[in-house]
Amino acid sequence: MIFQKSLKEECGIVGIYGDKQAAHYAYLCLYALQHRGQEACGIASLNLEEDAPVFHTHKGMGLVNECFNPDVLARITGTASIGHVRYSTSGSKSEQNIQPFTFNSALGPLGIAHNGNLTNATEIRKRLENEGSIFRSNVDSEVFIHLLARSPGSDISKRIAHVMTQVEGAYSLVILSKNKLYAVRDPFGFRPLVIGKLKDAYVAVSETCALDLIDAKFVREVEPGEMVEIDLQGIKSHFPLQPKKPSAFCSFEPIYFARPDSRIFGQEIYQLRQRMGIELAKESPADVDAVIAVPDSGVPMAMGYGRELGIPVELGLVRNHYVGRTFIQPQQDIRDFGVKLKLNPVPSVLKDKRIAVIDDSIVRGTTSIKILRMLRAAGAKEIHLRVGSPPITHSCYYGVDTPHRENLLAAQQSVVEMREFLGADSLGFLSIDGLKRALGQKNECSYCMACFSGKYPEAIHSTIKPQPTDKNGPGLFATA
Amino acid sequence: MIFQKSLKEECGIVGIYGDKQAAHYAYLCLYALQHRGQEACGIASLNLEEDAPVFHTHKGMGLVNECFNPDVLARITGTASIGHVRYSTSGSKSEQNIQPFTFNSALGPLGIAHNGNLTNATEIRKRLENEGSIFRSNVDSEVFIHLLARSPGSDISKRIAHVMTQVEGAYSLVILSKNKLYAVRDPFGFRPLVIGKLKDAYVAVSETCALDLIDAKFVREVEPGEMVEIDLQGIKSHFPLQPKKPSAFCSFEPIYFARPDSRIFGQEIYQLRQRMGIELAKESPADVDAVIAVPDSGVPMAMGYGRELGIPVELGLVRNHYVGRTFIQPQQDIRDFGVKLKLNPVPSVLKDKRIAVIDDSIVRGTTSIKILRMLRAAGAKEIHLRVGSPPITHSCYYGVDTPHRENLLAAQQSVVEMREFLGADSLGFLSIDGLKRALGQKNECSYCMACFSGKYPEAIHSTIKPQPTDKNGPGLFATA
Amino acid sequence: MIFQKSLKEECGIVGIYGDKQAAHYAYLCLYALQHRGQEACGIASLNLEEDAPVFHTHKGMGLVNECFNPDVLARITGTASIGHVRYSTSGSKSEQNIQPFTFNSALGPLGIAHNGNLTNATEIRKRLENEGSIFRSNVDSEVFIHLLARSPGSDISKRIAHVMTQVEGAYSLVILSKNKLYAVRDPFGFRPLVIGKLKDAYVAVSETCALDLIDAKFVREVEPGEMVEIDLQGIKSHFPLQPKKPSAFCSFEPIYFARPDSRIFGQEIYQLRQRMGIELAKESPADVDAVIAVPDSGVPMAMGYGRELGIPVELGLVRNHYVGRTFIQPQQDIRDFGVKLKLNPVPSVLKDKRIAVIDDSIVRGTTSIKILRMLRAAGAKEIHLRVGSPPITHSCYYGVDTPHRENLLAAQQSVVEMREFLGADSLGFLSIDGLKRALGQKNECSYCMACFSGKYPEAIHSTIKPQPTDKNGPGLFATA
Amino acid sequence: MIFQKSLKEECGIVGIYGDKQAAHYAYLCLYALQHRGQEACGIASLNLEEDAPVFHTHKGMGLVNECFNPDVLARITGTASIGHVRYSTSGSKSEQNIQPFTFNSALGPLGIAHNGNLTNATEIRKRLENEGSIFRSNVDSEVFIHLLARSPGSDISKRIAHVMTQVEGAYSLVILSKNKLYAVRDPFGFRPLVIGKLKDAYVAVSETCALDLIDAKFVREVEPGEMVEIDLQGIKSHFPLQPKKPSAFCSFEPIYFARPDSRIFGQEIYQLRQRMGIELAKESPADVDAVIAVPDSGVPMAMGYGRELGIPVELGLVRNHYVGRTFIQPQQDIRDFGVKLKLNPVPSVLKDKRIAVIDDSIVRGTTSIKILRMLRAAGAKEIHLRVGSPPITHSCYYGVDTPHRENLLAAQQSVVEMREFLGADSLGFLSIDGLKRALGQKNECSYCMACFSGKYPEAIHSTIKPQPTDKNGPGLFATA
Repeated sequence: MIFQKSLKEECGIVGIYGDKQAAHYAYLCLYALQHRGQEACGIASLNLEEDAPVFHTHKGMGLVNECFNPDVLARITGTASIGHVRYSTSGSKSEQNIQPFTFNSALGPLGIAHNGNLTNATEIRKRLENEGSIFRSNVDSEVFIHLLARSPGSDISKRIAHVMTQVEGAYSLVILSKNKLYAVRDPFGFRPLVIGKLKDAYVAVSETCALDLIDAKFVREVEPGEMVEIDLQGIKSHFPLQPKKPSAFCSFEPIYFARPDSRIFGQEIYQLRQRMGIELAKESPADVDAVIAVPDSGVPMAMGYGRELGIPVELGLVRNHYVGRTFIQPQQDIRDFGVKLKLNPVPSVLKDKRIAVIDDSIVRGTTSIKILRMLRAAGAKEIHLRVGSPPITHSCYYGVDTPHRENLLAAQQSVVEMREFLGADSLGFLSIDGLKRALGQKNECSYCMACFSGKYPEAIHSTIKPQPTDKNGPGLFATA
Repeated sequence: MIFQKSLKEECGIVGIYGDKQAAHYAYLCLYALQHRGQEACGIASLNLEEDAPVFHTHKGMGLVNECFNPDVLARITGTASIGHVRYSTSGSKSEQNIQPFTFNSALGPLGIAHNGNLTNATEIRKRLENEGSIFRSNVDSEVFIHLLARSPGSDISKRIAHVMTQVEGAYSLVILSKNKLYAVRDPFGFRPLVIGKLKDAYVAVSETCALDLIDAKFVREVEPGEMVEIDLQGIKSHFPLQPKKPSAFCSFEPIYFARPDSRIFGQEIYQLRQRMGIELAKESPADVDAVIAVPDSGVPMAMGYGRELGIPVELGLVRNHYVGRTFIQPQQDIRDFGVKLKLNPVPSVLKDKRIAVIDDSIVRGTTSIKILRMLRAAGAKEIHLRVGSPPITHSCYYGVDTPHRENLLAAQQSVVEMREFLGADSLGFLSIDGLKRALGQKNECSYCMACFSGKYPEAIHSTIKPQPTDKNGPGLFATA
Repeated sequence: MIFQKSLKEECGIVGIYGDKQAAHYAYLCLYALQHRGQEACGIASLNLEEDAPVFHTHKGMGLVNECFNPDVLARITGTASIGHVRYSTSGSKSEQNIQPFTFNSALGPLGIAHNGNLTNATEIRKRLENEGSIFRSNVDSEVFIHLLARSPGSDISKRIAHVMTQVEGAYSLVILSKNKLYAVRDPFGFRPLVIGKLKDAYVAVSETCALDLIDAKFVREVEPGEMVEIDLQGIKSHFPLQPKKPSAFCSFEPIYFARPDSRIFGQEIYQLRQRMGIELAKESPADVDAVIAVPDSGVPMAMGYGRELGIPVELGLVRNHYVGRTFIQPQQDIRDFGVKLKLNPVPSVLKDKRIAVIDDSIVRGTTSIKILRMLRAAGAKEIHLRVGSPPITHSCYYGVDTPHRENLLAAQQSVVEMREFLGADSLGFLSIDGLKRALGQKNECSYCMACFSGKYPEAIHSTIKPQPTDKNGPGLFATA
Repeated sequence: MIFQKSLKEECGIVGIYGDKQAAHYAYLCLYALQHRGQEACGIASLNLEEDAPVFHTHKGMGLVNECFNPDVLARITGTASIGHVRYSTSGSKSEQNIQPFTFNSALGPLGIAHNGNLTNATEIRKRLENEGSIFRSNVDSEVFIHLLARSPGSDISKRIAHVMTQVEGAYSLVILSKNKLYAVRDPFGFRPLVIGKLKDAYVAVSETCALDLIDAKFVREVEPGEMVEIDLQGIKSHFPLQPKKPSAFCSFEPIYFARPDSRIFGQEIYQLRQRMGIELAKESPADVDAVIAVPDSGVPMAMGYGRELGIPVELGLVRNHYVGRTFIQPQQDIRDFGVKLKLNPVPSVLKDKRIAVIDDSIVRGTTSIKILRMLRAAGAKEIHLRVGSPPITHSCYYGVDTPHRENLLAAQQSVVEMREFLGADSLGFLSIDGLKRALGQKNECSYCMACFSGKYPEAIHSTIKPQPTDKNGPGLFATA
């Protein structure tokens, strides 16, 4: 899935503690996390050496390298910082929703950056508003702040612990106070969060790839239910909540979101993707001349798939590096224009060939239709679509921006119908069991697979409608 | 005083109620109020016809015509709007301080724009933070919002009335709720606020010049202590607080801030300025060949001065229309470079002449020194500086950004010392009594003159240090 | 005439020779000349100390302070520079038309900046194209370059002299070669050009106000027909052409174009304008309560007019300082919106008063109509329009962008018709003789008055159609 | 070679003839050709249906999608257009060097866009300047224009033919006149140029990938020595010069420049690259655990290499999609920062593995050093560098911006020295014969291999110094 339209990560977060260039390292980490959110970004920093430090903040719409420049970085001084990248939605592109959120409280300045989604935010918010709280954004993360400000006691770590008992859902958080950095993860561990060390400084960040960029050393992951407290004395661990057993790591992190060079949830993303391809090959082989991938997540899957079957993997679709924000379509329609701007089919690979196309997932299916049509226009004789994850039949409430159920292709059509709709000669999905095998899960699975199975790890709040039984029951494969 | 460096207005505000192009009219009113604030501006609008309207907001650093364009205006839809321009300070040029502030509350969406300064904001803020309130900005106006959110009752006008009993100081406010617009003025009436009518719509705005631009009809001023409630049924007046007697209109509005074509505090600004010149001529005449003004406020003063004395008024200093934000000075210093970029002295008016220079006020005196030096370099034989207001000896706590007392020239030097410091052949200020005469005040004066006299209209809060007796006692005139 | 729409100067030019910050001084001079052209600007510099210097150039659309910043200035190094500002036309806003033009030739690098208009450029261009010359712009100045490149001899000053014998019309030029700066003026002296000294460096520039800004000393004007050659040895004067007698200084320079603090054609602009007002008062007095000006050129005229008649001059129209490039008009028309954005009428000056309005000139009359209507809406009881120059009945071919004759109001209507068209209670123009008196011209007039009289100083080229006799014959005054 | 620093293509060109959206299609073609030049781009269009058409032009620094927007495209109207992308050099980033060049001549408007390099441009230029020609740019392409303007006759095709007899070197050109489009290629055919058809319109463009994007049909290539004349009657072929035998197609087009989905010189680029990998495997196998590529050109080479040897190909280096123009390095150095921003090494592929790294070529070697160091830091146990082309020992004079010979690694070091310098465990290059086999060349080779062999296809002009014998004589392989 190259096109970040149907399935979006909430965001990526970073916290730096104890380096004079704290904002600068946050900026580089956000750059490494850019794949987790391209809509907006922000950094807030403060100087731990001051008695009454104040936040220096910069936020903006757009990519990290567009929003930050030397002048801006020179202005965001200080020895600690937190940062955030967020994805692009159509609706609420409002600047007041950009994180980190910073505020002044009786405890001094506090800043927060959040990855995830709180499932009981609406109720809490309504209650707080009735008590006179003022909300500036539409973001559920703001609930966390207000609860923090209203919690009892003058010790921030106790307050955070108190808030953790009130909120439900997914949260990986960094919180910066005037003298400490906190890295917090919900008891299911939906979203990743890792700790690294950079000389004397500590780094808390969504994925290890950010540590690699700045030459920081991986220390460990923040555990589900854990609050890590970082100050000049080092790291202290608290477990305000017991880790849930089994945990509920988001399975879309290894399938699609995380960068292939990252190691999260204790596993190597690149290897997991390759194994998904291998399992897919076992479950759903194809008799073809060549295997090609839909970039980028599909590439290691295709390598595993081809290798397992002994079929050559080819670069049938090349990603264009110069895609900008907008393109102006000519009056006379160019067929599948949007896809062609981003992916270049290589005719010499496709012409008169039987091709297996490996994609990481199918959400709405609208892009897949166009890609298949484009491949056929380039001369492919047969197209066998293979998908490295099971059919997505349910919405996510933990921070993945899945479309409404009526727009999830697999919630509306059987595999037989989908094959025809997409225009493939055959279509095969990886099974849930196959996915578990690829992820190395035996009995009790530590991954959340609710979007494939409808089995949510916690009782989802009443506003969420029960969903009809899915039409894909047993079928994972169809052919013409 | 052409240079908006030493004395700054807090801001200008506008509210529009009941027009499909509410944001557009707010934009034009802000343009007309641009002289009241050039740092930043913002507009928030909502659609009164919707059941659950939401704010559409745009804010930015810079001038109104830089921040708003057709695309932005097209996005800020709705039938009611509020807007704000604010001045430029060196320190806290933070985007989170830009008004209007909008927030969500149990009463629905609320927006506020504020001109003035609350003198007990710090205490209230501290108290609220201890109760769990979160502040996003450093602006005292935010206190008003929090008090509003925590006030009892479901009727917003009662809540506003309740807040008015708690805050002290200067405030002219517009508050927009999901179905009403409120225009509120403190009981002293420090800052102006007028009401106009544009077809079926109502306009509340700082100065009448904004009404003139959009062809709105002047209705009346909002009275001190009054809350005007505007809805589809029309205007309703409330007086939560008794107007103070005497009131305390800011005397710097007619001296410097307000636009000459505005009518506020029941008076015509242009005529007031001309009368200041006439009174100045009576108190402090000069035997000169020509009278020239320091643009812009000084121009009508110079006309009154020259006419009273029968001396020709000349354009000795022409304002440059193309001044941009920044200019790059060459390595070899150009003397008084900053002033020369903005004001062009006309040699043929000045060469070998005895000149009276009329300025509206002297704050730090740093610009006056340069102007006088520049005039002398252009050939003026004698320079007699006349100032259309009394010496400024005390700081303002009601929304004028006066420098610290140690930087107020007249708080540090006698008139005799100032004359020498500024390099004038003679120096004369208007007296407080002369200013009262020019403003048409007989016995009880409805204007605040604390910056000239130190007599503040209310007991100023304890954090404000008492100021030493001023050195200018009787003296308003000095000559070489 | 505040609105630079109907009558436009071609441009302003500058050359700096012999200072390490040559580009920086050119930039400041262009800033001082900004009133001569707001569309685009450019600077080209080279280092005289290098054996094979190359031009460093920066050009752009917009104002000087928009196009140049510290980075750009740091890049345009060298000890000599030339610069240019040009006005805004609707049509050919092409970047390739921005001057200075620089090119490489057998003589080394050459750069040119031109103010004026060559009347035989079209013929020369056609001839040169047939001989294989390539033109990159639509600007007549390029003809000068090509002739220079094709002139015989290796001495540039001889080549320039040779070109001067071939071109006709108006030209004030600066030309920069690898070791010399040339300042050239046509034999009629249509456009101004003055020489100044800045320590060891020389400055050639359109108006003295630029010398004042950079603290350069005025040396003298370049004479009509003269080529001034500047090098490390100093100034050398050549007269390739005899100065024409009488010369033909553009009379619109003192009426409208030049800055009031400039001294050109041997005269002080501010004083000339005041004398135009005095002569106008003598020829066309008005029985009014107050005299007001249309800013900016009208202001000194109004001062002369009021003083001569003993009537008070008031600030009835205040120029807005925050006018940006574009403004978005609301759907419901605001009457005379464009004018109201730029000029604020002061009601207290106008209400129920009989007013004389002094404008410098009337070109199309479209703006005048709106101003008069706006003044009447502000309450003026009687409006007597007085114009400080004669009716414009003919087009200019020497560098002023006059509209086509059919759009010149005075070429189409008699004064009686114009008065009614403009909506004035009375209308009076200055006579040609009155203008001559104001300019201090006795018998032989050294100013070109072709736009008022149709008497062009040289035989205008055949492509220029003869114009019909003008309808304004004797009449310069009309009343209701 | 992902880093376009050492070896740069001159540019990409396009011409569109006979479509109302000519500029729009040119824009899309330039987007598809963006890999051939990222510094600047431009389009010039005119309307063939007008009697006296004029060029509408837009040019700018930066990428196609940065320079062009809907407003710009709406302005560049007309039914024919030419366009150009050019690469980024450090020195002469001057806007006046951006193509297409348009000019006015006795033949009407003429525009030109050029890919290649004329080897006798300097002499011709010097001659023309002495005859009075003016050059505006430093680009050799301008020589072509001047010769065209000075050629005899009124028929443009004859003039072009005449110019082709005068210039030497590499040129693929599109020339647009008021009624015809010409596509011209030098007799050696150094640079590609193909013809396509889009409904009734014709397209001439550097690579077929641009035809694919706009759904145009490939017609044929322009032949070496051919001038294709396109007008409303269709295509006409002229051969002003005999095609040279053998021709001299640039071998770096298939190695590095061309897009893998293009077909030029009659061959499929993707397949050629894969064959280079196969030949490299035969000549220089490696005993490793995995094969990885340096993106992008190295990827198909790695696939061929791995497949030939039966070793798995892995994604060991992932290209970052969010690289912006500039990145701000922190004060404390991050090792190999620039490379890490662009390429992400995947630790799980590299850790403790013996790796063959396939790069397309080595120019200066500076990037290769960093990549190898980064791979080793990521855990690679052995690194065997394999290069899909022979050692580059000589500079190119035909449009590839090779560095000076002293900066070509292979011109300065033997393979043994290079291996050590780069830090590889072994190093192997493809031989010239191997490259010929990969390109399908038997006896007479139609590709120019001068940069590998020093045997230039034409007598290079005298200003080009003879180069010393290269040090790489026989050796193409070295091991530790």
